[in-house]
Amino acid sequence: MAIGGTSEHHGGSIRLGMVGGGEGAFIGAVHRIAARLDGDYELVAGAFSSDAERSKRSGAALGLAEDRCYGTFEEMARREKRLKDGVEAVAIVTPNHMHFPVAKAFLDRGIHVICDKPLTTNLRDAKRLKAIAEKSGAIFALTHNYSAYPMIREARARVAAGELGDLRLVQVEYAQDWLAEDVHSKQADWRVDPAKAGAGGCIGDIGTHAYQLARFVTGLEVESLAADLTSFVPGRQVDDNVQVMLRFAGGAKGALWASQVAVGNENALRLRVYGTKAGIEWEQENPNALWFMPFGEPRLLLTRGGAGTGEAAARVTRVPAGHPEGYLEGFATIYQEVARAIRAARDGEPLAPDIMFPGVDDGVDGIAFIEAAVKSSKRNGAWTGL
Amino acid sequence: MAIGGTSEHHGGSIRLGMVGGGEGAFIGAVHRIAARLDGDYELVAGAFSSDAERSKRSGAALGLAEDRCYGTFEEMARREKRLKDGVEAVAIVTPNHMHFPVAKAFLDRGIHVICDKPLTTNLRDAKRLKAIAEKSGAIFALTHNYSAYPMIREARARVAAGELGDLRLVQVEYAQDWLAEDVHSKQADWRVDPAKAGAGGCIGDIGTHAYQLARFVTGLEVESLAADLTSFVPGRQVDDNVQVMLRFAGGAKGALWASQVAVGNENALRLRVYGTKAGIEWEQENPNALWFMPFGEPRLLLTRGGAGTGEAAARVTRVPAGHPEGYLEGFATIYQEVARAIRAARDGEPLAPDIMFPGVDDGVDGIAFIEAAVKSSKRNGAWTGL
Amino acid sequence: MAIGGTSEHHGGSIRLGMVGGGEGAFIGAVHRIAARLDGDYELVAGAFSSDAERSKRSGAALGLAEDRCYGTFEEMARREKRLKDGVEAVAIVTPNHMHFPVAKAFLDRGIHVICDKPLTTNLRDAKRLKAIAEKSGAIFALTHNYSAYPMIREARARVAAGELGDLRLVQVEYAQDWLAEDVHSKQADWRVDPAKAGAGGCIGDIGTHAYQLARFVTGLEVESLAADLTSFVPGRQVDDNVQVMLRFAGGAKGALWASQVAVGNENALRLRVYGTKAGIEWEQENPNALWFMPFGEPRLLLTRGGAGTGEAAARVTRVPAGHPEGYLEGFATIYQEVARAIRAARDGEPLAPDIMFPGVDDGVDGIAFIEAAVKSSKRNGAWTGL
Amino acid sequence: MAIGGTSEHHGGSIRLGMVGGGEGAFIGAVHRIAARLDGDYELVAGAFSSDAERSKRSGAALGLAEDRCYGTFEEMARREKRLKDGVEAVAIVTPNHMHFPVAKAFLDRGIHVICDKPLTTNLRDAKRLKAIAEKSGAIFALTHNYSAYPMIREARARVAAGELGDLRLVQVEYAQDWLAEDVHSKQADWRVDPAKAGAGGCIGDIGTHAYQLARFVTGLEVESLAADLTSFVPGRQVDDNVQVMLRFAGGAKGALWASQVAVGNENALRLRVYGTKAGIEWEQENPNALWFMPFGEPRLLLTRGGAGTGEAAARVTRVPAGHPEGYLEGFATIYQEVARAIRAARDGEPLAPDIMFPGVDDGVDGIAFIEAAVKSSKRNGAWTGL
Repeated sequence: MAIGGTSEHHGGSIRLGMVGGGEGAFIGAVHRIAARLDGDYELVAGAFSSDAERSKRSGAALGLAEDRCYGTFEEMARREKRLKDGVEAVAIVTPNHMHFPVAKAFLDRGIHVICDKPLTTNLRDAKRLKAIAEKSGAIFALTHNYSAYPMIREARARVAAGELGDLRLVQVEYAQDWLAEDVHSKQADWRVDPAKAGAGGCIGDIGTHAYQLARFVTGLEVESLAADLTSFVPGRQVDDNVQVMLRFAGGAKGALWASQVAVGNENALRLRVYGTKAGIEWEQENPNALWFMPFGEPRLLLTRGGAGTGEAAARVTRVPAGHPEGYLEGFATIYQEVARAIRAARDGEPLAPDIMFPGVDDGVDGIAFIEAAVKSSKRNGAWTGL
Repeated sequence: MAIGGTSEHHGGSIRLGMVGGGEGAFIGAVHRIAARLDGDYELVAGAFSSDAERSKRSGAALGLAEDRCYGTFEEMARREKRLKDGVEAVAIVTPNHMHFPVAKAFLDRGIHVICDKPLTTNLRDAKRLKAIAEKSGAIFALTHNYSAYPMIREARARVAAGELGDLRLVQVEYAQDWLAEDVHSKQADWRVDPAKAGAGGCIGDIGTHAYQLARFVTGLEVESLAADLTSFVPGRQVDDNVQVMLRFAGGAKGALWASQVAVGNENALRLRVYGTKAGIEWEQENPNALWFMPFGEPRLLLTRGGAGTGEAAARVTRVPAGHPEGYLEGFATIYQEVARAIRAARDGEPLAPDIMFPGVDDGVDGIAFIEAAVKSSKRNGAWTGL
Repeated sequence: MAIGGTSEHHGGSIRLGMVGGGEGAFIGAVHRIAARLDGDYELVAGAFSSDAERSKRSGAALGLAEDRCYGTFEEMARREKRLKDGVEAVAIVTPNHMHFPVAKAFLDRGIHVICDKPLTTNLRDAKRLKAIAEKSGAIFALTHNYSAYPMIREARARVAAGELGDLRLVQVEYAQDWLAEDVHSKQADWRVDPAKAGAGGCIGDIGTHAYQLARFVTGLEVESLAADLTSFVPGRQVDDNVQVMLRFAGGAKGALWASQVAVGNENALRLRVYGTKAGIEWEQENPNALWFMPFGEPRLLLTRGGAGTGEAAARVTRVPAGHPEGYLEGFATIYQEVARAIRAARDGEPLAPDIMFPGVDDGVDGIAFIEAAVKSSKRNGAWTGL
Repeated sequence: MAIGGTSEHHGGSIRLGMVGGGEGAFIGAVHRIAARLDGDYELVAGAFSSDAERSKRSGAALGLAEDRCYGTFEEMARREKRLKDGVEAVAIVTPNHMHFPVAKAFLDRGIHVICDKPLTTNLRDAKRLKAIAEKSGAIFALTHNYSAYPMIREARARVAAGELGDLRLVQVEYAQDWLAEDVHSKQADWRVDPAKAGAGGCIGDIGTHAYQLARFVTGLEVESLAADLTSFVPGRQVDDNVQVMLRFAGGAKGALWASQVAVGNENALRLRVYGTKAGIEWEQENPNALWFMPFGEPRLLLTRGGAGTGEAAARVTRVPAGHPEGYLEGFATIYQEVARAIRAARDGEPLAPDIMFPGVDDGVDGIAFIEAAVKSSKRNGAWTGL
């Protein structure tokens, strides 16, 4: 019953700012809990809304000083940069179309960025942002949180160690139903507006999560894809269901299905990978378990913290086996890994090799995936390279 | 705890013959159990092997008279036709390439046929066989056994009653792993030989089951498909993995995945259907349960024999809820439904409208599916009509 | 995908009679399917009801000759004994209070008996029946069908091989809800009537199944028990819920819970056994799986027909892994094992050592369990020896 | 996808101290994460170890000022009381025998206490502590964390609303295996030492959790119990397995099983409650789901955040349905509820009626349960009142 995974031993909290995430937002609250959970960060500033009054009200409710609550991200970036105790990192939790300008504003000032996915609304911006991030020298993290689940780390480690043999098949899916009807809400509205979400709807919102997860666990690169995107709900301008066939470099094949109209599903993200020697299966809604299925032997149920689960999972595990960890813990692990990177940067030390979080390259890759899928679908499912 | 589903009340057993299914065969034994289970049939003759000695040995072991055990199906068809107590129906459990000639021999003599799937090895033969069957007036049944599971009947009834609303999505898959390596056995050898199996390997062997199940439950017709067939095992001449995207008449979309190299899977046939009002999910390895998921309400777990499960399932149910029925019971239901049809034919009575078994049309449809998938795959996944 | 478990290779069907099981009965139909499934028996005679007309009607529906359908079991026993082709074995599927006189009538004439459980309504009769059975030389089988599930055989073999180490804990339960209200039906009425069911209600009907299963798998003997029996439904004369603490010879402990008022349960029979080296878990409603949990290692999910599952299960397995077998197959295995014993008796050959079915000793043991539980409960849960 | 459950809107963090929980401790880290997660507390002082050096080292690693790290709890209580910004609440995470003196020291000074369970090592101390707590006017919370899982709140609300009808049965169990062998570790050692753990081993460590959960959900009081406690591991001085039969006031019955030697189990806490109208089932290892099983209807799977799940669960829910919450979130909810109570106390306002956390009465009740079970077991399982 030893406990790893917590980074309580440290040298002072990291001063964090937030852009977006004001009253009524969902993902902003998630980022704040994630930042708090391991005690690595202190939220000290924010531009929670483009309405200055709302921003101050949100900040006050979070216990921030009034002069650290801004009406625009530009003002925040400028002023915080000048403060002696200004933010060291910023969390960007706006709709997609704001990721680029906000990230740029902070990166240009050398402030670390933790950005929600997808990276941008188009590939051109994504590549520009990559250049900006690289030039800045600041740390850039993209919160593909599912890749931080301990049993996903276990899966990745087993694939990397060759325990599955040569990979043949990758089946990944992410099914929801919350957009099965023509709903309107703060969460829904921008996601179905191409101006704010980008060209992809479902494929950008959850398809990229599925894609990133498959890439993260397998290490395989998608060479080309054939996609069929559909908007089932009348009047919807973006896709709400996505069928994709995948061809990976090296010969593996696969399929990706993402849907926001699969009635009865909540967040049914599921990954299955099959190699010559073994297969694995994992489901986000029961994330503490991982099936490992060696060919010609009984299936094993590996558990987070349990026997047979290795170091890659253990180092991001907080509580013993049988006490479930969930979504927030995974999200917090991204923040914790980034905190380690920021501290290393503070101290001018090299990054420990085991630290792992999605970055700007994953972001560019995700946008390339979205664009390829949209393009393939417009070309009636023609195989399209990434 | 009432018990339905058994057809013990009848007017004399149906005299059954079998072609194929000798020593060491798998599916022959399954058909025999299925035929016996409800007491509707008596096995009286067989051409169990093309080796006359083996055929007699197999027949003797099954308690048959020596003169009813034949070395060729032609001889069997000819002689049984002349006998006063000759077979009324024949079960065909040979490799695929023999389905056509054997079925023809018996149909031509007005003997009912219960044939394993797929119908034939090519579409031309399938259509010819359909014409032969129709001309014969005999009953023709194809043992797509999964469509006889009670909870599949329940699913179909709910779709037909509009409980799912307009259908949008059909996700069906059938994963196995027994051909993950280059195995050799009586079961494996003919299935990977195009001369015996037909052009499709995995797609013919299990892909057709998945396809038929999706069609049976939803009532939807596949308008076109885009397929990517792969032979992963070196040297294999037929596909062992199949990815297909589906477009249904009326606008529904879907995906079909079938694999015989998905390491860790036994017979993981799974169907998920989503409409505007509700979704359903079913897995063959746990066939007594069916998820019914109305939009905006909690999911229901329907069980065979349990509360809320309707008449369509009840009439093919043998034991009370909580006492699992399995593969053999589903198979036996096909035989039982056919027995009802044969008795109606005997008596010159019309077929009861609730009797339901896959027939020659399903067979033709299945072969059309195989050919379209093979064709699409050869054309690099181009959308191909059925 | 080899197939074992079927005993089609034989020397002529066994002539079977049945007492009880007429129109509307549940368990009679189950026994008939079980007898038919492997082709070992032919039903030739019956006293299906104490009403001669009903008996003939039931028999006719089953295709029996009119003169083999009897109004009393005494007449049936007497006449069948004299017939050249009289029954070789009889299935007793009456309410409990008739088991003793019917079994005696056939055993006294050297006719084999396959009797539903529990053996009798009291321990005195049970012991007398044991003496009668032993004197007769006939085979006596008791249909504790759950002990015939392949994965239960696997569990037993693993315990016997020492894979669990020294056993410490046995948790067994059987929960139903069909008597949660004061229902009236052919199935319910005799089960809640002490004159027909015996002193135990729930404990006799399903508690004995749980008890037998625990004993069968572990090989442990219950030394004493402390029971709390309850009749929750107002006016009910027998228990409908049973809590029992168990002490086994050798020091293991355990608990048995059986209930017919646990709302939401169908036939939730579940066995869990824990030793010093490993634990196992099994559920009747998903009978093709068995958890094997070695200490300090990941849990394994063993499957019927699957990798790692041994010979004890394989010999009673009919279809390959992933194609579920169910309740009827388990029941049929009891019949098949008895058929093997009857054939050995026919031929004067010794019983093969691997043949396994519950017999009269299990029956006496089960009644001793019921009586001890009833006695303990009356004495306010005092520990009571068996 | 609205998000409730987070109490970010507040008026300043609560200054928290900790006694116990130094280097290598498990539960101390859990309490710290729980306190941090919603941003309600700031850890400012601690007596992390009775070794002053270790205490300072632990505190330093947590970022505390050196003068707020104490070698004894007495010194901490005395000094913190005098500080202007001294602790407002203290978390007690020591072995059981220290709960009483530590809690007394802080309560006597009017400092709120959040104490791990069980309350004390004997009933006399428990009652004294209750008197002390009541006299102090301070808030006393006991971290029976499982009662804070949202779906447990849902279960409780449904029972209270009469949706289960009259309760008949309560089956609760908590199975672990980590003490299946004679292990030695910081976690294990004090738990098997009666001087530190109290008279109960397994029954005190996890049996009380199961007992509290059953009481919390059902609202029923245990009238008497019959217990059989066992120490399976040679040389162990306390029980490691517990069988208990329960009789509740009002006529319901039940059973409680707790074990630390059930090989293959991690933290398998499971609660099942059956009434005249419906049953419910819940498992801690999959805490986001709750089965609701109305009599004569299909079972419903309720989910945290999902359709049909009510306000009692929603108010302690942080993320949307399908994104699992786990053990730490439940623990954090206890801290959050206590924070609400502390703020109400700060402001001299009445406690909101929906605030819910286990208190000193639950603690006394738990110790009464332990003592009754130990007494019953010593008297060979005699029914013993609480």
